[in-house]
Amino acid sequence: MRQRVEEYISNLQDEIVAALEKVDPNAPAFKRDSWLRAQGGRGLSCVFAVPTPPDGVAPQHTVLEKAGVNISVVHGTLPPPAIKQMRADHSSIPDIQTSVPFFAAGISLVIHPRSPHAPTVHANYRYFEITKEPTDAQREAGQPGDLVAWWFGGGADLTPSYLYEEDAVHFHKTLKAACDAHGADVFPTFKAWCDEYFFIPHRGESRGVGGIFFDDLCAEPHKRLADGAARPKTADEIFAFVRAAGDAFVPSFVPVLERRCRMPSTEHERRWQLLRRGRYVEFNLVYDRGTKFGLVTPGARIESILMSLPETARWEYMSELGTDPESREGKLMEVLKTARAWV
Amino acid sequence: MRQRVEEYISNLQDEIVAALEKVDPNAPAFKRDSWLRAQGGRGLSCVFAVPTPPDGVAPQHTVLEKAGVNISVVHGTLPPPAIKQMRADHSSIPDIQTSVPFFAAGISLVIHPRSPHAPTVHANYRYFEITKEPTDAQREAGQPGDLVAWWFGGGADLTPSYLYEEDAVHFHKTLKAACDAHGADVFPTFKAWCDEYFFIPHRGESRGVGGIFFDDLCAEPHKRLADGAARPKTADEIFAFVRAAGDAFVPSFVPVLERRCRMPSTEHERRWQLLRRGRYVEFNLVYDRGTKFGLVTPGARIESILMSLPETARWEYMSELGTDPESREGKLMEVLKTARAWV
Repeated sequence: MRQRVEEYISNLQDEIVAALEKVDPNAPAFKRDSWLRAQGGRGLSCVFAVPTPPDGVAPQHTVLEKAGVNISVVHGTLPPPAIKQMRADHSSIPDIQTSVPFFAAGISLVIHPRSPHAPTVHANYRYFEITKEPTDAQREAGQPGDLVAWWFGGGADLTPSYLYEEDAVHFHKTLKAACDAHGADVFPTFKAWCDEYFFIPHRGESRGVGGIFFDDLCAEPHKRLADGAARPKTADEIFAFVRAAGDAFVPSFVPVLERRCRMPSTEHERRWQLLRRGRYVEFNLVYDRGTKFGLVTPGARIESILMSLPETARWEYMSELGTDPESREGKLMEVLKTARAWV
Repeated sequence: MRQRVEEYISNLQDEIVAALEKVDPNAPAFKRDSWLRAQGGRGLSCVFAVPTPPDGVAPQHTVLEKAGVNISVVHGTLPPPAIKQMRADHSSIPDIQTSVPFFAAGISLVIHPRSPHAPTVHANYRYFEITKEPTDAQREAGQPGDLVAWWFGGGADLTPSYLYEEDAVHFHKTLKAACDAHGADVFPTFKAWCDEYFFIPHRGESRGVGGIFFDDLCAEPHKRLADGAARPKTADEIFAFVRAAGDAFVPSFVPVLERRCRMPSTEHERRWQLLRRGRYVEFNLVYDRGTKFGLVTPGARIESILMSLPETARWEYMSELGTDPESREGKLMEVLKTARAWV
């Protein structure tokens, strides 16, 4: 499974970067930045940014403003406190008192387009293993120790500044079709989980308009999918579902990007977009599990973890934008305050 | 003490706002925004922001970009989990298993000037009381219950984007003079605490160049000030020290602001300033105790808590700015990575 996941996320990364580059052929290419982790493992970050021109020269106008499509494949040792923290979310991990080997492979992406009419999107699919220490024979053969626990997690979610209902519907329809082929209970369960996960309690609003979110998906009973639920159950079935969700990324998002990215916009719309990006920063730094876990993990690659942050964000005290329910900003706030089903 | 603190912070707020308005007489005045807390208490936020003009009209150029000088005087009930969390930092709180009445009064300010040459500054002084439930007689007389614990906390710290050593020296000298009159051990102890508190572990750097920071200052033994330390000890002595530190704010910062705020700047310098403001956001959302406590406190006033965030912040993946130790940006990074004494 390790090799299959690694191969899959690597191909998916190529496919997504190629699809994004095709939308804006005159923009600079994504910058490929591969890295090694001292404690074991490697990664490849594909990052989009517009180089800052000399003073007085306007920066190139591009479809994207900042984007990253990263993969990482790492292994090492989890100390008991990290295992304890993980057990809270992952019931399949046994109660272990010693350090244990782990393996993690995943793809993680965040796309912040420049136009206030084009939504930000995030997706992440990951595979995690905990094993026993390898036996001498396994070590000699370059094999990991016997599996103790494994699971998949991931999801994709859409964060518009201005609400175009047809975009939210298209995004959810595409994800739903991918999920439905793997069990009728998958999409509704993971859509609800997404709405719950991306909620910003101190603002009383969601980060975005939804998508899917799941974690701890393995052969064991699942805390959100009932025992009899129509859902993928074996490792092969679950990996097939994750591939279907990952493959749905380009068709779920790129058509939305294409129809919004060249719409003209005003400074007022830009201001609102930057305020919404401020909320994105608040969610990611205060609540996002992956970010929080990354910030406290010694040896974690901070630049990769915080790549999700927008190039620019804005905060205003008691901003009037979004407070009028009849305004376009207010219409977005309404769906952020009360999650909608979309399909 | 409640009344004396309330009167002091209210006067200090007036004085600071007047001093800041005097620096830029043509700028819009600070907006006074008073609020009531449903659970008990009140506040007055004095906020500076430049109103956003219509599309195509350039915003007014002002010395300040965003600033807030807030006071709040609140009371209510602390539930057992909040007391437990508080006891970790405040050893003078007894181990109480029930909800208890509290009182808190404080002034909190953050000033983000527009020029990349003028530093951001933050200061906060606060007084906290935990009491018994009032007796019937106390209740009838409008009195709080008997005191269980009380303490002062606070500090001031400077966050430049470009390092002017004379600014850091002036800021620290002014604070040191205020502290020294109240005990020779005060300044060195609270300067070291400031360097420790404002450190951003995931970046391996400080938010700024220092100042003073203290908490849990009361008549009881203190975990950082040795029993024989030259320090204020009685409630009156401690309040006199806090007033001295609060009174030092204007002379420590306003002369620095005046000599930097009209220096010309480039887009390159602005970009670096916005990257530094991104770090400011990271510290405040991920580590700052007051912000974290506020975000999880039901009924807290989010707009006041997050008023500390800059109007605009920026994040770049693997930015080259600041990496050359010979550049002006690199020279700032050097003092952020290794705290300096300044006086």
